[in-house]
Amino acid sequence: MTTPPKPVTDFSKLCIHTITTKPWTIEEAARHYFEEGIGGITVWRDALYGRDIKQTGQMLRDYNLQVISLCRGGFFPHLEASGRQKAIDDNKKAVDEAAALGAPMIVLVCGAVPGQPLEESRKQIKEGIQTVLPYAESAGVKLAIEPLHPMYADSRSAINTLAQANDMAEEINSAYVGVAVDVYHLWWDPYLEAEIARCGKNGHLFAFHICDWKTPTTDMLNDRGLMGEGCIPVRQIRSWVEKAGFNGFNEVEIFSTKYWSEDQSAFLKKIKEAYLEHS
Amino acid sequence: MTTPPKPVTDFSKLCIHTITTKPWTIEEAARHYFEEGIGGITVWRDALYGRDIKQTGQMLRDYNLQVISLCRGGFFPHLEASGRQKAIDDNKKAVDEAAALGAPMIVLVCGAVPGQPLEESRKQIKEGIQTVLPYAESAGVKLAIEPLHPMYADSRSAINTLAQANDMAEEINSAYVGVAVDVYHLWWDPYLEAEIARCGKNGHLFAFHICDWKTPTTDMLNDRGLMGEGCIPVRQIRSWVEKAGFNGFNEVEIFSTKYWSEDQSAFLKKIKEAYLEHS
Repeated sequence: MTTPPKPVTDFSKLCIHTITTKPWTIEEAARHYFEEGIGGITVWRDALYGRDIKQTGQMLRDYNLQVISLCRGGFFPHLEASGRQKAIDDNKKAVDEAAALGAPMIVLVCGAVPGQPLEESRKQIKEGIQTVLPYAESAGVKLAIEPLHPMYADSRSAINTLAQANDMAEEINSAYVGVAVDVYHLWWDPYLEAEIARCGKNGHLFAFHICDWKTPTTDMLNDRGLMGEGCIPVRQIRSWVEKAGFNGFNEVEIFSTKYWSEDQSAFLKKIKEAYLEHS
Repeated sequence: MTTPPKPVTDFSKLCIHTITTKPWTIEEAARHYFEEGIGGITVWRDALYGRDIKQTGQMLRDYNLQVISLCRGGFFPHLEASGRQKAIDDNKKAVDEAAALGAPMIVLVCGAVPGQPLEESRKQIKEGIQTVLPYAESAGVKLAIEPLHPMYADSRSAINTLAQANDMAEEINSAYVGVAVDVYHLWWDPYLEAEIARCGKNGHLFAFHICDWKTPTTDMLNDRGLMGEGCIPVRQIRSWVEKAGFNGFNEVEIFSTKYWSEDQSAFLKKIKEAYLEHS
């Protein structure tokens, strides 16, 4: 709250998630991101479907795009042991994909099972991460726990605050396990600034995702806004993240039925404008 | 986590919010609640529109209904001082209505302004409550801060966890200011049990609201479920609330476009069944 946070001035630290421009193939996305001078890309696994992943990674690098992370692993909790084992197998597969792609990190949407106590899901999440961890370490791929908004606690993640993600990363205590901070999920938290500082101090601040929360929000999944369109103090939060030592990419992750229905080239220009003005 | 929480066995501590059976007038609701042997009613202010409030309170008592609270006051934050003054005036009006009705308490949905920093809104909420407090005290009407789910932090409440509500109630430190615990808003919170204990210990646990969180939830406002229809451990949370010393009513507060479109008498029977089986 001393000096106002500074705006970003260029696109070198701008990363876009392939899902943000979902109508594009990854090849189209890469070409457009390159043409617009964007520095990084985070790849959603569905974008890799049917591709040679190594070649796709090379294609991204040929377009001067730094691969920031692979989205997403996780979904560890299940009522049955067989379901939990399937999740472990799928997370190992994600590690293979990240290694082939040249992505240094996987973002984990940790999972939850409606009706299973959150405490039990949290235990299963921790066990799942610990089981996958040696495999990830030997592949040189980091795992980023992404705390999700409490409105997803029923079925998507039992980790709903940065404090919980910090707790878990500290308990697991590996250089390969950290946290992805997403403003959409965490902006409301009265302890956000302090928990970001704690996360950075422990070397656990692996990723920073941005977008905005619109009023009204008409869909719980696919109505995210561009930075500046909503109530999230994105620039303020970025300043906290940087104060905590983070100097990685600012990743634009927007799920939006509205924006997906628009011309994606025009949308990409809007993202760049919003990034300069509101991030 | 020692002995499993006990079910409720009768309807003497069951309270229903008039908004739960929104298609009914308050007169219809009172008659049906009485006929079904329900012990309490919480009145939403819109249900009083055009009525003599004193007479309405008498009508409720004639139906053997204990008036638990008046919903709702609050919405203190505004960008302009004039808006904040209007909110104060409206909350005083709510105090008058509660006193006339014979309701011992008003539930506060504290408010938030999209784009105004949450910290500022929280300050305005505290000032608002403190300003209304002497008026409420002299009318013998209590004020219950209801922490709202973080998905309402943009425009409905900047108080989003029980810890925040407890903090504020303790700071204000009056026998007339406490907290309303609603499972829908708070079930996901990893600190819920501890914060309920803290709330009770301080004499601040004024009200307990129940319903359920459905998967999927298709509307952020009006798709609440009946107890047992979703993932909230209602009985577990009730046991924590009672362990914390609460012996008031269990208030069923369900906003549901689906249920409002059904026959309300049949819905009321479903509420009673769900109450016995899942509360």
